[in-house]
Amino acid sequence: MKLATLKNGHKDGRLVVVSRDLRRAVDAADIAPSMLDAVERWTLTAPLLAQRYDALNAGTASHAFDFDPTAAAAPLPRAPQWCDGSAFLNHARLMEKAFDITPAPDSDRIPLMYQGGSDDLLGPHDDLPLPDESHGIDFEGEFGVIVGDVPLGCPPSMARDRILLLVQINDVSLRGFGPREMRTGFGFFQAKPSSSFAPVAVTPDEIGEAWQNARVHLDLAVEYNGRWFGDPNGREMNFGFDQLIAHAATTRRLTAGTLVGSGTVSNAGDTKGSACIAERRAIELIDQGASTTPFMRFGDRVRMEARWQDRPVFGVIDQRVVQSPPPLPFPVEGEA
Amino acid sequence: MKLATLKNGHKDGRLVVVSRDLRRAVDAADIAPSMLDAVERWTLTAPLLAQRYDALNAGTASHAFDFDPTAAAAPLPRAPQWCDGSAFLNHARLMEKAFDITPAPDSDRIPLMYQGGSDDLLGPHDDLPLPDESHGIDFEGEFGVIVGDVPLGCPPSMARDRILLLVQINDVSLRGFGPREMRTGFGFFQAKPSSSFAPVAVTPDEIGEAWQNARVHLDLAVEYNGRWFGDPNGREMNFGFDQLIAHAATTRRLTAGTLVGSGTVSNAGDTKGSACIAERRAIELIDQGASTTPFMRFGDRVRMEARWQDRPVFGVIDQRVVQSPPPLPFPVEGEA
Repeated sequence: MKLATLKNGHKDGRLVVVSRDLRRAVDAADIAPSMLDAVERWTLTAPLLAQRYDALNAGTASHAFDFDPTAAAAPLPRAPQWCDGSAFLNHARLMEKAFDITPAPDSDRIPLMYQGGSDDLLGPHDDLPLPDESHGIDFEGEFGVIVGDVPLGCPPSMARDRILLLVQINDVSLRGFGPREMRTGFGFFQAKPSSSFAPVAVTPDEIGEAWQNARVHLDLAVEYNGRWFGDPNGREMNFGFDQLIAHAATTRRLTAGTLVGSGTVSNAGDTKGSACIAERRAIELIDQGASTTPFMRFGDRVRMEARWQDRPVFGVIDQRVVQSPPPLPFPVEGEA
Repeated sequence: MKLATLKNGHKDGRLVVVSRDLRRAVDAADIAPSMLDAVERWTLTAPLLAQRYDALNAGTASHAFDFDPTAAAAPLPRAPQWCDGSAFLNHARLMEKAFDITPAPDSDRIPLMYQGGSDDLLGPHDDLPLPDESHGIDFEGEFGVIVGDVPLGCPPSMARDRILLLVQINDVSLRGFGPREMRTGFGFFQAKPSSSFAPVAVTPDEIGEAWQNARVHLDLAVEYNGRWFGDPNGREMNFGFDQLIAHAATTRRLTAGTLVGSGTVSNAGDTKGSACIAERRAIELIDQGASTTPFMRFGDRVRMEARWQDRPVFGVIDQRVVQSPPPLPFPVEGEA
């Protein structure tokens, strides 16, 4: 089943069911007004949504309409929580080598994860408004999952069954803030502005055998300003989403709608490119002694897509970095 | 004006107006079903809530009832975002001295802030379910604010006017995870289980001249197992809430309902005690060469209250640490 959220002026948006080929959609507000409501009551809503999905694919759903991904918000525009792992150790090792960082001795056993902001997640074609080109603007191509309620102490074996939907993410990063924020020990904050999401969230069965070991075994094709940048595969995750969820739930329960991310998809070897500029710059530094690929400038575009058997899965992220406008005095939009 | 959220089985709870003396309450669902909805539409809802507050205090509100703080959830049980500062440098300096940490050279200019989880914030009398006493269970007494929508790049002068409500917080911390999570650079995650909140959120005018320079100039009285632990005053914040909000909004906008915390309240000198065990242990280590106060055990209680002119403000946090139950197989509560 494939689901999306259309913008409707409310911060949680409006839930629609999307056809397998992403061409058509049908309203689902009578089943659940929002994606968040749907995942909160998944046992009740999922069978009804699946029924509507079948009708939509069969061409028998009434009031179906063309799906317009430019009208889509993030599947969860305001998620209860965003827990972003760094589960591809190939990426971590490259960064450590380039910047002479000593990894934690247990980093192959305990996943890295930071708590991100999730109050304002962006849609697949939304502009990325950022204040300053000198902040080291970067994209990060990731896969992620939306979970149901997860109890405190949930082991990986149980966590796998709490994965309701898969998503595809551009985890926008400002590399200029990273080193200082890491040194303080308090972790990323200004380094992580709002992330963006491909328009469609899918149940794991939608990618068949490409969902294996709680990993998304798909290439994530990344284009930067219209040119190939990388197409690393999600199968090389050193920690599966089941392990990432269990890590996040070690000391607290997670409420339904929590997003868990894989971290930048990254593969060993030199044929698959990278899913973020920082990694390419690290490789350049290691191989040639200097980083030559610049970070993003205003107007630059990034495109990310993962396909299964040459068919669309999550749809496309294709967005542009723009300079943010100066702040306006309040009352701001939505309050008056 | 004073507002609270009563538990009603939904994750956002039900909004009520509470009398100045915290004895009586009246429903406000016809104005806004939840605190989150109220702060999202504050320009519209605040005057109506203030009217009801006046009627409640005058004894003329219809259908008023006794306010029961044990039925209260956190004011925002599921907040869009929780940005916790560490704005009392006295606390930071003690921790640095005890553990031989070199502070960032610009730490008196750039506030420390981490992104916390906010999907499951606890009420003032909820038990704190935690898995293991050996994790170094600690409380942290803090003040905080709930903001309206804050634009990207909002300067402190504008940020001050975006503060809608003040809150009082127990930022629960697991000290055993902290050092490792700080060393990775990814920041606190397992070290920060769900935080708890005093029952009542108040507009800044409710504390008169004790709201000054975007700081809460009140003593925060902390009792641990029925004995005085500290009563540090909020006035010694080295960064005001206006500066913390501006810091958080440097690279992204903040949506209405974002919570910003002060970090552990901490005062210079040796008369005001501490608002967390870790700080007392640091002082013991510095003064006597060894920390003697143990972290919390299951069954231990912490109480926190701030009063203004000997009158209640936010109400009381009084809660107990308990061992979390083993995780149950799904479907979990709320799904069936």
